[in-house]
Amino acid sequence: MTERVLALQALAPEQRAQLEQAGVEIVDANNWESQSPITIILGWDKKIGPAALMAPSNQVKWIQTVSAGIDYLPLDWIKAHDVQVTNASGVYSPAIAESTIGYLLYFIRGFNEAVKNQAGHFWQQPARDDLRLLASQNVVIYGTGSIGQAIAKLLHGFGNEPAGVNRSGHPVDGFKQTVSLENDHDLLKDADVVINAMPATSTTVHYFDEQFFKQLDGLNIFINVGRGKSVDQQALMNALLYQNILHAALDVFDEEPLAKDSRLWDYPNVLITPHQTGFAKENTKPILNIFEKNLQSWLNDGSLSVNLTDVSQGY
Amino acid sequence: MTERVLALQALAPEQRAQLEQAGVEIVDANNWESQSPITIILGWDKKIGPAALMAPSNQVKWIQTVSAGIDYLPLDWIKAHDVQVTNASGVYSPAIAESTIGYLLYFIRGFNEAVKNQAGHFWQQPARDDLRLLASQNVVIYGTGSIGQAIAKLLHGFGNEPAGVNRSGHPVDGFKQTVSLENDHDLLKDADVVINAMPATSTTVHYFDEQFFKQLDGLNIFINVGRGKSVDQQALMNALLYQNILHAALDVFDEEPLAKDSRLWDYPNVLITPHQTGFAKENTKPILNIFEKNLQSWLNDGSLSVNLTDVSQGY
Repeated sequence: MTERVLALQALAPEQRAQLEQAGVEIVDANNWESQSPITIILGWDKKIGPAALMAPSNQVKWIQTVSAGIDYLPLDWIKAHDVQVTNASGVYSPAIAESTIGYLLYFIRGFNEAVKNQAGHFWQQPARDDLRLLASQNVVIYGTGSIGQAIAKLLHGFGNEPAGVNRSGHPVDGFKQTVSLENDHDLLKDADVVINAMPATSTTVHYFDEQFFKQLDGLNIFINVGRGKSVDQQALMNALLYQNILHAALDVFDEEPLAKDSRLWDYPNVLITPHQTGFAKENTKPILNIFEKNLQSWLNDGSLSVNLTDVSQGY
Repeated sequence: MTERVLALQALAPEQRAQLEQAGVEIVDANNWESQSPITIILGWDKKIGPAALMAPSNQVKWIQTVSAGIDYLPLDWIKAHDVQVTNASGVYSPAIAESTIGYLLYFIRGFNEAVKNQAGHFWQQPARDDLRLLASQNVVIYGTGSIGQAIAKLLHGFGNEPAGVNRSGHPVDGFKQTVSLENDHDLLKDADVVINAMPATSTTVHYFDEQFFKQLDGLNIFINVGRGKSVDQQALMNALLYQNILHAALDVFDEEPLAKDSRLWDYPNVLITPHQTGFAKENTKPILNIFEKNLQSWLNDGSLSVNLTDVSQGY
């Protein structure tokens, strides 16, 4: 049987041709119903994706996402129907890591104030001691997977070796120390920077809550490039008001888009980016490389050779 | 004769005590006239510095600046009177390099637009292809001394090896290629980023002029962390208007402070910082380390062991 790939990710003509040469049929989002049965889905769309799975003719056995996270998929249904999911984990990590270093330098090197002063035409130098070096900030990264490791790698270039927090506390290359989520308190005492790069799972939902933030006494920077749902947003706003945290850079939110009337937009020490931190023109090629590798093994022997997720874990 | 050091740089009590233990007398800015003759000046002040040199009792033989550049000193007078000048070259380079990476990421990772959208509560994602990776930008650094090398070193951490431009085109570690100022045209054809990190000398004044900018066809980012006088500011503004350059981050200016009514403040694709890029709390210690090393050799045998400048070259 020829595999029929429902492409919910835009493909350039040469990319489409390359996939067709591998021996599969590419089905477009706008006419998938007339061309079912679909056997593979590339990418996702919150309307077409579920519709394709629920269609009477459905024969989908494999979904290749173009995202790292898979928490937006109907995971219970997928597990019950033995569909395998491969993700694009790793592809976005360089872009997320670069943005994360950018967020850090934005605050540490005084751009936050400079941008405001520029708007008012104010030439207002900070005190020499107000600016710091990233090299000497004490950084704790939650999540030591692909994203956390990419951030750690860039930090090394600044002479900075971060500490890490993960589920079991197992050591990971590039981190001077790692502890489990249960034992993070000691690390936080000396932290200047906390970065969330954890996936969304039942363990991580609202991990950063009032109790967490109350441990902090003037943390310089909190960054969320993981998932919005890991943070209790109201608790974070309180922590910023009460200066448990001095600055925050946030790319992901409880509800996206962030509501127009959210007070968070106007917090003077918060940088908000609209869930864009993983974007980069350079990502397209490695995403299709993953799909092509998997397609090759799938056509050979029905296996998926890279980035196979554990649907029951949710990542 | 006991050396009398006129301290035009603030000293913490323990720093003062440490210098006094080395066997010198520290004279404060507010009572130097009653305690002349001064033999050494640490730091500079645009009123007290010249006054001390011109005083009838003047015996200054050595000036230790706390800056990297020395172009603000009365160099002709200094040369004519055989005064030696040591600078703080190298101290500020890590801070300047960190800021420079920050400027790059600010534009490459879309913070420029995000900051504006945040002010208006707009959740406006860029197109995925609008954001880029620093890793893949083609960077040309003018000036391959301490600052240029520090920037190159941080770029390496991003997997980016820059090209360099210096006076003779001599090769420098950390640069994939170096050319002389006369031969920079070929490098510029493929450049995404130009960074000025040159000192102010007669060769570099207005090096970046109309003719220079006209070579550029949509350069992504121009950064000036060198000297304001290296850039013809009006020509730069034109280059931004005509999109020879798409974005600029400027820390130094023709005239500082930048005039309140300068149109440059309002350029939407320009980030202005008020000559702060070298600031860091971490700098104080290495500045005094340089002075102490020189003081030791000076007291031993009248030599200056580190950071001796060539006054006739101006750096």
